[in-house]
Amino acid sequence: MSEKVTVGDYLLARLSEVGVQHLFGVPGDYNLQFLDHVIDHPGITWVGCANELNAAYAADGYARCRGAGALLTTFGVGELSAINGTAGSYAEYVPVVHVVGAPPLASQQRGEWLHHSLGDGDFGHFARMAEEVTIAQARLTAENAQSEIDRVITTVLHERRPGYLLLPSDVAAAPLAAPPLPLARRQAECSPEALAAFTAAADTLLSRAGSAAILADFLADRFGVGDALNRWLAECGLPHSTLLLGKGVVNEQHPAFTGTYAGAASDEQVRATLEGADAVITVGVKFTDTITAGFSQQLPLEKTINLQPFQARVGAQVFNQVPMAEALAALQQVVARHRPRWRRVPVTRPALPPSASGRFDQPAFWQAIQAFLRPGDILIAEQGTACFGAAALTLPEGCRMVVQPLWGSIGYTLPAAFGAQVAQPDRRVVLLIGDGSAQLTAQELGSMIRDGLKPVIFIINNQGYTVERAIHGPRQRYNDIAQWNWTHLPQALGSRDGQVMALQAADTAQLHDALAQASAADKLALIEVILPKMDIPALLQAVTQAIEQRNSGKHSAAE
Amino acid sequence: MSEKVTVGDYLLARLSEVGVQHLFGVPGDYNLQFLDHVIDHPGITWVGCANELNAAYAADGYARCRGAGALLTTFGVGELSAINGTAGSYAEYVPVVHVVGAPPLASQQRGEWLHHSLGDGDFGHFARMAEEVTIAQARLTAENAQSEIDRVITTVLHERRPGYLLLPSDVAAAPLAAPPLPLARRQAECSPEALAAFTAAADTLLSRAGSAAILADFLADRFGVGDALNRWLAECGLPHSTLLLGKGVVNEQHPAFTGTYAGAASDEQVRATLEGADAVITVGVKFTDTITAGFSQQLPLEKTINLQPFQARVGAQVFNQVPMAEALAALQQVVARHRPRWRRVPVTRPALPPSASGRFDQPAFWQAIQAFLRPGDILIAEQGTACFGAAALTLPEGCRMVVQPLWGSIGYTLPAAFGAQVAQPDRRVVLLIGDGSAQLTAQELGSMIRDGLKPVIFIINNQGYTVERAIHGPRQRYNDIAQWNWTHLPQALGSRDGQVMALQAADTAQLHDALAQASAADKLALIEVILPKMDIPALLQAVTQAIEQRNSGKHSAAE
Repeated sequence: MSEKVTVGDYLLARLSEVGVQHLFGVPGDYNLQFLDHVIDHPGITWVGCANELNAAYAADGYARCRGAGALLTTFGVGELSAINGTAGSYAEYVPVVHVVGAPPLASQQRGEWLHHSLGDGDFGHFARMAEEVTIAQARLTAENAQSEIDRVITTVLHERRPGYLLLPSDVAAAPLAAPPLPLARRQAECSPEALAAFTAAADTLLSRAGSAAILADFLADRFGVGDALNRWLAECGLPHSTLLLGKGVVNEQHPAFTGTYAGAASDEQVRATLEGADAVITVGVKFTDTITAGFSQQLPLEKTINLQPFQARVGAQVFNQVPMAEALAALQQVVARHRPRWRRVPVTRPALPPSASGRFDQPAFWQAIQAFLRPGDILIAEQGTACFGAAALTLPEGCRMVVQPLWGSIGYTLPAAFGAQVAQPDRRVVLLIGDGSAQLTAQELGSMIRDGLKPVIFIINNQGYTVERAIHGPRQRYNDIAQWNWTHLPQALGSRDGQVMALQAADTAQLHDALAQASAADKLALIEVILPKMDIPALLQAVTQAIEQRNSGKHSAAE
Repeated sequence: MSEKVTVGDYLLARLSEVGVQHLFGVPGDYNLQFLDHVIDHPGITWVGCANELNAAYAADGYARCRGAGALLTTFGVGELSAINGTAGSYAEYVPVVHVVGAPPLASQQRGEWLHHSLGDGDFGHFARMAEEVTIAQARLTAENAQSEIDRVITTVLHERRPGYLLLPSDVAAAPLAAPPLPLARRQAECSPEALAAFTAAADTLLSRAGSAAILADFLADRFGVGDALNRWLAECGLPHSTLLLGKGVVNEQHPAFTGTYAGAASDEQVRATLEGADAVITVGVKFTDTITAGFSQQLPLEKTINLQPFQARVGAQVFNQVPMAEALAALQQVVARHRPRWRRVPVTRPALPPSASGRFDQPAFWQAIQAFLRPGDILIAEQGTACFGAAALTLPEGCRMVVQPLWGSIGYTLPAAFGAQVAQPDRRVVLLIGDGSAQLTAQELGSMIRDGLKPVIFIINNQGYTVERAIHGPRQRYNDIAQWNWTHLPQALGSRDGQVMALQAADTAQLHDALAQASAADKLALIEVILPKMDIPALLQAVTQAIEQRNSGKHSAAE
């Protein structure tokens, strides 16, 4: 950097340095001057989105695929529109830096009644709101900018959660106060003593076991042990599974992969494999309600070894300062000692259920999607019939799956698919989303068309909020929605001259034909799939019954 | 109410009691059981929206037209998506009750890792965020529900700002703890002594003046003195004006109405009328940046009498406990005494500028809109070229105008128009919105089509964010957006069999033809108006220059 660089340039350099190559967002008058620097930056491309929430979702999808993402909005209106997306990144451990272009510092200090403020002279409202859903925040000045930008970015990467940078327009344009230093990344603290104690405790637990299984989940991917984990699984041959949130973190083509675990709602073989093992090693697992059918997992504390990002647990014993990567490496050696005497558990993988109705229904759809998937695809499935149906798929090798079952923000996946496709333009993004969900964020299809991206988008049209119908009110009109003509949408949103293939499939033959066309064509494909209104994947049925029971207060802790 | 009513029923009864006849929102599993009661309620109609931010905007538009509105979302994802809309209601004094369906209390108390939470067992994050942008909040239990619902609703109505009610699903279903009492509405406190002192001070100030003018603004409408004010203006004949935020609060057909005041960016006649008066009475005025072209108003403190909702000011003297209605009534008598000796100021109203280019441009468009407007229309103009252009219109009698120049959230007006049309189905809603803005919230057009509403919607297509171009970066590609085919959009969003009239106007003749068709037809009309990319209304030019100067730090308080 030359001496003439600005605070804005410094921020862009740092983002670029940590692997962010695209900045998602919406222009606003408090970020326009910074945007000039974005446009001029050789390593970062501006990706304008149709609105700020969509931009936050896109940055989240991008970060899930690339390890870090960034979002730019304006003050007040823009940041609050995006904040639900940021909260989702927080809940599900996705590192996104949210840069908010703000009014000039002098105007803030004078307490002016500016547009995009609440008109009360208090410019701290929104930063205080961001504190609830971000891991680090800074209100930048020319003086603190360098240290605060570094602190926020390194914390975001360390904790894998979003951060917030309030960048006043005059601060963005201010010259750097000092020449930049190399960015010092934070390393997880590892205590050799604690690691040794963990290893000894794990050894004791495993020495008493006659069999073991492994349950991996999303935090293994987020905290960078996915590759190490897969190498180990390929070698050790222990039966293993994931929860829905982490589906794709392990290679599902391996013969010891048994399918997706979902507590009592699991396929019986998957459940027996996990819950029947004498010891269960969980790697990056977080048991939340929907992915466990209401906390119905049966994995008693005393038989589990639990690896978390910065600590490990053996039974009830907690070991702090034992990071996941180090714990995993130590555990491999322990397992290698005990494995030879463990009984071999045959692993069978549940088959996708066939269509029993003879009609075009959910089973028929999922059979077709299973056949359609290719190695390396990025499969993105909306919370609802899409992701609970997709839980039963066996992913081809190298597939990444993006789902959001903890935060579960309806409409998330359409902009997330945009972000994922920007992150990895050479991979095929396959989006599965219901018609009810897609209406929330549909305008981002226009951005994909504008940028010439080519995902394959399935709109599962079951005429409304089927996931909500499954929980409550199957025939209530609040679960009905406006009936869109989905195949007309691409043209309305800017497709010209056949740029987009828009097809409708109302039976198996039409779907197979549409899939064949989408596979062969080098263009964005939107396939509207007409499925019965009350047809629900089996897993979703089990999960939603648990939720309805809990919401009505019929469930208690004693049950 | 019978003894079997639930907390949810009680809440609905209270909303109905204060004039809320429609509840906007999006279903979610934590509000579904409450929604059953909404559907069953005889006095409240459920209005499902395509997403939560749009629902918040719609509830805001509804409340601006009916005096109160209500919004229902689910916990976490839903409420955060809506929160930018709520913040806008807060900034611009719009009373909307936001009801959030939440997880059952027992689950919250156990700190369960539930979907739509951050997965940390803390269910207070979002209520704390709501504290920053609402005037009253409550986390309801079966025990506190009646008193807390009443406290929040009466505070919302008293302060004309949004409130927040967190309604756990089991609390909604719980039986009422006690028979309901009549709702005790809050009255503004009025001190007879302070009112007398205010009146005396006003008398002194006005006795020294040789002329006076009146500037009214949005708080006069919000706090219910609009009718009294107009009766007075009609009778007293003093020259008067409004700011853009309050445009429509006074009858613009009155000969003493001089046009919209905008500080130094005002038409010269308007500016001279206001700033040239010896005394200026301001009623419900708040001087924010965009509506004053960067605080350029010249109305020295010592010659103004300022009526605010709960206090009044004469010069630098502040009188608390003097509500606007009482102050206005007192002031009328004082003015009546002095008016006969004040010099008569001839009031001329600036004409709309004619098109000088001979082309189809902004002046040509506004001339046509002026002719198109009818008495009683609700005119809704998006922040941008739309509302700054509309500032120069003279509204027909009985028109209401909806603009959002303080909060200025891009995309607000399209869902707000939906809400306004639901609020007043017998009036014609005319929406003016740019293509860039409409993309943020376009899906709500589908809801209007679903519900058979018939607003007239002008999409001002200038190929991107012209208001931002005017501020900064006229040729930067961040101000370009996806190019939609606007006239195809209604069909994609559900219009069937010619239900919607979709027209494009690229010249004056086409626009006149489209306006004639829209006037004659009894259907929703979407008219895409193609205007030059860099063509900007004169007022917007002045305002944006002030903003750009301030954002770049070139402005200082000393200037």
